[in-house]
Amino acid sequence: MEFNFADSAKKMRSSAIRDLMSLAVRPDIISFAGGMPGNDLFPIDDLREIVAQLPTKRLEIAMQYGETSGMNTLIIALKNWLQQKGFPVDKNRIILTTGSLQALHILGKIFINPGDTILVENPSFVGALSAFKSFEANIVGVNIDKNGICIDDLREKLKLNPKFLYIMPNFHNPAGIIYSQQRRTELLQLMQEYNVPIFEDDAYGELFYDEETKSMLSPLKTIAKNEEQILYTGSFSKIFGPGLRLGWMLVPPEVYEKAEKCKQAIDACSSTLSQTLAEEFLTSGRMEKYIANLRNIYRQRRDCMVEELKKHMPAEVSFVEPKGGFYIWIKLPKGVNEKELLKIAIEKGVVFVIGSTFDPLGNENGYIRISFSNNTIEEIQKGIKILGESIKYLL
Amino acid sequence: MEFNFADSAKKMRSSAIRDLMSLAVRPDIISFAGGMPGNDLFPIDDLREIVAQLPTKRLEIAMQYGETSGMNTLIIALKNWLQQKGFPVDKNRIILTTGSLQALHILGKIFINPGDTILVENPSFVGALSAFKSFEANIVGVNIDKNGICIDDLREKLKLNPKFLYIMPNFHNPAGIIYSQQRRTELLQLMQEYNVPIFEDDAYGELFYDEETKSMLSPLKTIAKNEEQILYTGSFSKIFGPGLRLGWMLVPPEVYEKAEKCKQAIDACSSTLSQTLAEEFLTSGRMEKYIANLRNIYRQRRDCMVEELKKHMPAEVSFVEPKGGFYIWIKLPKGVNEKELLKIAIEKGVVFVIGSTFDPLGNENGYIRISFSNNTIEEIQKGIKILGESIKYLL
Repeated sequence: MEFNFADSAKKMRSSAIRDLMSLAVRPDIISFAGGMPGNDLFPIDDLREIVAQLPTKRLEIAMQYGETSGMNTLIIALKNWLQQKGFPVDKNRIILTTGSLQALHILGKIFINPGDTILVENPSFVGALSAFKSFEANIVGVNIDKNGICIDDLREKLKLNPKFLYIMPNFHNPAGIIYSQQRRTELLQLMQEYNVPIFEDDAYGELFYDEETKSMLSPLKTIAKNEEQILYTGSFSKIFGPGLRLGWMLVPPEVYEKAEKCKQAIDACSSTLSQTLAEEFLTSGRMEKYIANLRNIYRQRRDCMVEELKKHMPAEVSFVEPKGGFYIWIKLPKGVNEKELLKIAIEKGVVFVIGSTFDPLGNENGYIRISFSNNTIEEIQKGIKILGESIKYLL
Repeated sequence: MEFNFADSAKKMRSSAIRDLMSLAVRPDIISFAGGMPGNDLFPIDDLREIVAQLPTKRLEIAMQYGETSGMNTLIIALKNWLQQKGFPVDKNRIILTTGSLQALHILGKIFINPGDTILVENPSFVGALSAFKSFEANIVGVNIDKNGICIDDLREKLKLNPKFLYIMPNFHNPAGIIYSQQRRTELLQLMQEYNVPIFEDDAYGELFYDEETKSMLSPLKTIAKNEEQILYTGSFSKIFGPGLRLGWMLVPPEVYEKAEKCKQAIDACSSTLSQTLAEEFLTSGRMEKYIANLRNIYRQRRDCMVEELKKHMPAEVSFVEPKGGFYIWIKLPKGVNEKELLKIAIEKGVVFVIGSTFDPLGNENGYIRISFSNNTIEEIQKGIKILGESIKYLL
């Protein structure tokens, strides 16, 4: 039988990151590849306690279909939490989504006609690239530096009349940076002149590793004069567990209306079991305690990785020390090819993600992404030493 | 700010069934509207037991990202289960999906170009219609009778060169019928002449209410000479709980490859927590016991509803007694308008879904769908009496 697929399906490509994931589970390989929380850090005791203690009626509701936009009680809890952080929750509406990737997928679907130009940071989150590509967007990258998106480049690219701009101002994946206050202001000033929505992806915002950074976090949605321009997405993946597949969008009513209809046709609703667990985790105060603990542990892992990098990398290697999140974005010495390095490193027992994975066009850029979130101190020490040796081998 | 949505988003419509759901939760109204399992029937004790007893390592994996196509251990368990039922599991591959609606959404996305003709039964499942509409399909209905799809009408409509045929041979939603063996054979014979895939949706197949019916169930995927032509979808929603959002597709490798890439861009993976619970529910033998009990209870509810209908409906009303599933599809007397009837019935305290909801073009058809799955015997007795009075009022 010959299957006559749709044109868009004929063009689909697999995300390169997937193949690395199979390497990531080999016990003989230290993986800095995954963008995932530490397995050892999930709040399993809390989970068991919640399921044991929740009234039967609530668990029955948790096993049933729910509203497409999410369970009302969780939406209220999330609203309260976001309001405390300064979000304009009353002018916007929330949709719970199957991971925040689904929020990006839905926003992509309701904005992109095939061939439409959209802007993303270069480098950018591979999941978002994959979602936007599935709608046949013409994806244009905008440069970033250690302080955020490059305003001049953005001004230039806005002339292409893009449908939206997708960015991660807090603890960027893969670049590990946080936008400076000044850059945020400049960005908002520039964007105000254009009728172009900003998708603000804040999956890592809770994972800051010092108090000074905390004061820098202010999401664009909380500070923009024209907050309506910003379609904000968040996630429980990094503050509870990605296995729940639970994220959200906070968007103006007009966008909500389209997004809700779109979600109806995708999966009807996100797991009500996940939503019930998340609501209880959030409202019982367990989440706050849990995140505080996560910050401490991830800070230690970050500190360790930075220290080991300083110890083992040749002088030609450079990187920005991340103030939160999971990632360090390593600029390789000239002449060291990322694919060749990956091959050598895998032979020696370390895996990571090459920079081209995060390039909107898949171009090699002389960078690699390593993450410190799912490794013990010992693994980081051992793995970074191997990485250093691998780079030196190619110099 | 003016949002410049994609063309397809501008055309999106809300599913009519959604508004009824808000009525369905009003305590003063008896709802026969929802296509949902009984809240009182979910296996909450099993759920608590599983979460309490699973090793911590497995719960950690349950909180983490998983493979896009699903957790390998669940796929193996599902394969074994399906193999026992005669499915060609070795020639096909499984993808776990976020409800079986997502499986239909993905299949829609990889087959439909805007404007493509597809065939569905008329009436058809509203979720599937909504998914296929979101890709701007030209949806053409094929008539069904009490024995299944009408072969002559199908032969006629196949001339339109459709991309696929979507059907529910077992306990049809909303029509409540099961395809006869003869109709299955005729259908497969006809379809063999065409290079047109069949999407076989079998969400209700486990819910047969007598042994004779059990022997009629044989899914097309298990009996077709050209089984490759059949893209099969199943669901845990009716045999564990829809709140898990867990379904699957069993499809040939070529389709798998496209579908897996498509899912990567939608939500990366389905809830690994749900998958872990489903695996344990299935492999521990709890599921089999649970389904056996469900059949008994739903049979009683079906028997009660059929009996009450015979007691309270005017002679001009007709329906096929369902041998499984959740639904009775009621043909109204001539002159009784379904919308008017719904208005009267809601005033008297009963809600259901009008037939036009399931018509591919939204045309009125003189039918209503009532479900017996989520009501007690007392509610069924009271509600059907009210429904009878409402119809008589309009005669």
